[in-house]
Amino acid sequence: MDQNLEHKRHTLAHLLAASVRELYPGAKNAIGPAIDDGFYQDFELPKPIPEAELLKIESLMRKKLATWDKFEKREVTASEAKDEFAWNEYKTELINEFATEGKTLTFYTVGGFVDLCKGGHVDNPAKDIALDSFKLDRIAGAYWRGDEKKPMLTRIYGLAFDTKVELDAFLAQREKMRERDHRKIGKELKLWVFSDLVGAGLPLYTPKGTALQMALREYLMEINMRYGAQPVTIPHMAKRELYEISGHAAKFGDELLAVHSHYGEFVLKPVNCPHHIQIYASEPRSYRELPIRYVEITAQHRDEKPGEIGGLARTRSFSVDDGHIFCRLEQVEEEAKNIANIVKDFYTSFGMWGNHWVSWSVRDPEHPEKYIGEPTDWDKAEAMLKKVSDEMNLDAKRMEGEAALYGPKLDFMFTDALGRERQLATIQIDFSMPKRFGLEYIDSDGSKKTPIIIHRAICGSLERFMMILIEHFAGAFPFWLSPVQVKVLPVSEKHVEYARSVLKALKDAGLRAEIDDANESLGKKIRNAKTQKIPYLFVLGDKEVEANTVTVENRTASEGAMPLDTIIDRLKIEYHDRV
Amino acid sequence: MDQNLEHKRHTLAHLLAASVRELYPGAKNAIGPAIDDGFYQDFELPKPIPEAELLKIESLMRKKLATWDKFEKREVTASEAKDEFAWNEYKTELINEFATEGKTLTFYTVGGFVDLCKGGHVDNPAKDIALDSFKLDRIAGAYWRGDEKKPMLTRIYGLAFDTKVELDAFLAQREKMRERDHRKIGKELKLWVFSDLVGAGLPLYTPKGTALQMALREYLMEINMRYGAQPVTIPHMAKRELYEISGHAAKFGDELLAVHSHYGEFVLKPVNCPHHIQIYASEPRSYRELPIRYVEITAQHRDEKPGEIGGLARTRSFSVDDGHIFCRLEQVEEEAKNIANIVKDFYTSFGMWGNHWVSWSVRDPEHPEKYIGEPTDWDKAEAMLKKVSDEMNLDAKRMEGEAALYGPKLDFMFTDALGRERQLATIQIDFSMPKRFGLEYIDSDGSKKTPIIIHRAICGSLERFMMILIEHFAGAFPFWLSPVQVKVLPVSEKHVEYARSVLKALKDAGLRAEIDDANESLGKKIRNAKTQKIPYLFVLGDKEVEANTVTVENRTASEGAMPLDTIIDRLKIEYHDRV
Repeated sequence: MDQNLEHKRHTLAHLLAASVRELYPGAKNAIGPAIDDGFYQDFELPKPIPEAELLKIESLMRKKLATWDKFEKREVTASEAKDEFAWNEYKTELINEFATEGKTLTFYTVGGFVDLCKGGHVDNPAKDIALDSFKLDRIAGAYWRGDEKKPMLTRIYGLAFDTKVELDAFLAQREKMRERDHRKIGKELKLWVFSDLVGAGLPLYTPKGTALQMALREYLMEINMRYGAQPVTIPHMAKRELYEISGHAAKFGDELLAVHSHYGEFVLKPVNCPHHIQIYASEPRSYRELPIRYVEITAQHRDEKPGEIGGLARTRSFSVDDGHIFCRLEQVEEEAKNIANIVKDFYTSFGMWGNHWVSWSVRDPEHPEKYIGEPTDWDKAEAMLKKVSDEMNLDAKRMEGEAALYGPKLDFMFTDALGRERQLATIQIDFSMPKRFGLEYIDSDGSKKTPIIIHRAICGSLERFMMILIEHFAGAFPFWLSPVQVKVLPVSEKHVEYARSVLKALKDAGLRAEIDDANESLGKKIRNAKTQKIPYLFVLGDKEVEANTVTVENRTASEGAMPLDTIIDRLKIEYHDRV
Repeated sequence: MDQNLEHKRHTLAHLLAASVRELYPGAKNAIGPAIDDGFYQDFELPKPIPEAELLKIESLMRKKLATWDKFEKREVTASEAKDEFAWNEYKTELINEFATEGKTLTFYTVGGFVDLCKGGHVDNPAKDIALDSFKLDRIAGAYWRGDEKKPMLTRIYGLAFDTKVELDAFLAQREKMRERDHRKIGKELKLWVFSDLVGAGLPLYTPKGTALQMALREYLMEINMRYGAQPVTIPHMAKRELYEISGHAAKFGDELLAVHSHYGEFVLKPVNCPHHIQIYASEPRSYRELPIRYVEITAQHRDEKPGEIGGLARTRSFSVDDGHIFCRLEQVEEEAKNIANIVKDFYTSFGMWGNHWVSWSVRDPEHPEKYIGEPTDWDKAEAMLKKVSDEMNLDAKRMEGEAALYGPKLDFMFTDALGRERQLATIQIDFSMPKRFGLEYIDSDGSKKTPIIIHRAICGSLERFMMILIEHFAGAFPFWLSPVQVKVLPVSEKHVEYARSVLKALKDAGLRAEIDDANESLGKKIRNAKTQKIPYLFVLGDKEVEANTVTVENRTASEGAMPLDTIIDRLKIEYHDRV
């Protein structure tokens, strides 16, 4: 955050404290920092404040601001400070702590309002802060010092920017984000449900959510297989020992979900590479077989904390589009290029390619010793990734010291319709895991060599990716992804029979279609279908029945009446081409 | 087992005991019952017997048999019995036990050989047992009384039938079974592997096994969706509470795999209905929505005992083609008929329809009180299943008392190529589970009703079904199921380039193809491909390169040379039609 803006926000926290204390005698202010987007101040209040009163507080803040023209700073002793804040146990606690830690105690006074503060304000609030650049936002509960054993205070949040234009832009963006919140849209489109009996973070996909997920899965598999990948299938659990060898037991620690069997110690797999490695290791391998490319969309599990679970953003069970390539060092370039091509094809289908950047993570040149593997192998692998970037015009940004300890990587960051950036695809070279499991292949000269593993994901967690897609498209998915692609709307009861035959024709053509044969007005049926963001509506009345046609409405306009075969043939192509 | 045959087998166990004791002085015989296919006798032996000596023992048995013309029975007191068997602690233990339980003790003597026995022999062994109708089979270890804390005895198994013809038939059948053993073929075709680090009963499918499984999954989904089923997707775990409500926690008990989370008590799902029920229950349902048909191929887990795990016959993790239909009572008939049609279509594709019978499991008329649900509902549901059987000519056999406590059912039993019968598909009506979860729908009159659930599986566990298919086809799967559908065989180095273009054309056509470009003779390449039971071989030499053709060999004959397009078009149709 820009320092001047941070000072404004912190100053506004003081102003909020002063205003609340004036309006609600007996209120005790605790702490009030600047935060992203604004500021907050915690209070112990004589009685709860309804949200409606925020306007009253805000109004007083504006009135006061005019008189706040200079902060006066004064160094004080602990006992002076305690005298001043004898009425406020929160400040007293802080004073005692700061004194013990040998910190200097300072009071800042402005407009007659004294606060214990370490500084960081604008010089002249009345001049420096625009009256319309801030706004109180909401009220929430917050434990004193974030400790649930301590008293619950009232936290008042404010928004603050340099100008009203920026504040308004923020509010508009936030409103868009709320409208596009995947949890909201997921509910409206009925894509998944949670059940208290199943547990938090364990989504159950309805037929509609499953249709969306299947469309993604099919596409991912198709595009991977086009580049020579081979699907494999692994179980969801393994002995804990597997992850002790791989190092994941240490890495995930408490996040591992242990499975209690009577016959050994198992865990739900947190990652898939050790399983795929077991398939590679199940028979002797020759250089002629390499590269071996395993792909799989499979469930992973992690014991996420309840507070960190929400919607599909983070779940305890999630499906990943995972893949591992076992190859020789010289093959890294071609394999990395193949994967980059898959990434390009895939994100192009969502209109997201172009709104991206690529990071090329290499070693920290100051600490070459901390990396696993031969430096010459690292040099080659890093150079090959760079070459892929050059040849594909990825313009990858060199990120020194960002490589994993086990190898360099390319990561793909994409920006969604609301400007939010997310790391999605990844290509990671691994010099370490093949050694941990003692993997081998027989080279052309008969010698035993260690293969390299490339870990790769195109979209990563399908749960998280669906969240991103839902918010990116605000639920109005491309045709090929839409859970319901066509809604058939008979105008009245007497058109239902024809509508059913149209529905059947659509289904027989492999399209996802539904009928709305409720006894309601066409207007209402159209509104319902639009709420569901369905790409095509087929309206069927007397004219259509007679002429054996359908009147097609897409998301933006009516395309008029046309023979059923014509539109079905077109939609089959749109589906197949994923446009 | 036919009683007379059982008596023969038991008699032969005596004969085995007598012969071993004569050949190996100091040997102590323990117990020796008739079993399926023959008999066995347990011994404590002075020293181990190699398998090769079975012939010697067999030969003595035949010699002795000539003299065994009459069993003499004698009732004895416990002390008489103990005197006779003072040298044999196993018999002594049995005598003490029988005496305590107040059983009559009897000795049977024949050809001078006395044994403690409760009877069940042929009258005149020499006359009643054909010399060539039995054969010693193998030696194994067996704990006395099956208790691993007790001494390990030597168990000698024998085979015995009424005639040599039957014995030979049994041996031939067993040999066929060994040749077709799915574990053997699975290894030869490299369909799956097990890993000590992953754990027993947790198969990892290679690309080939995955291709087979995917072909099955795609077909199952396609055929289900054709009948209006909707795929859903559920997580692999749930709170234990879910299964306490469903009753599965009590039913599976120790077989449940508990998942240790820091935030609750979870288990890996042993069944899927409670999850599917949660989706149904996630919103109010109207009679207009019914039937709702959820299908899913998803993993289930059970903590099977190590001794019961083997190959794919029984695994700790297995995928099931599961489905649940929520409907009104009046809809049961149509839904059951739909499922029966799916079963018929599916098994017809394997040539297994026709080698089947159907059981119609109804209540035990003597105990109507033990069933859950209204008797009138039961009457209707049973009658509807019968009607489905009649209309579809299933000729279902009425099995009284075989219904589940919660509803009547139709089960489908199929016979494989070796004559083994297996229960596979099932249609089960359930009056109980909807009540346990308080499921509802609003009926046309506005009243709340409880739906019925139909549990259905077409092939059940995919693991077990793959085992059955592998053994049924001896690995020579129908074209559409074959992991590798076409093997491309360049005659020599100079045909490899053309062969690669053929391979690419096959793959682009969506066919599963491989190339064998090893530097080996065509004969060897063909033999390798035949071992892999690949349905089509494309042989490519000078002639083919020149004429731009391929010479096609199917499993039984050469089809000669033909243009590549011609055969690809034909194979695409064969694949699509699943012939």
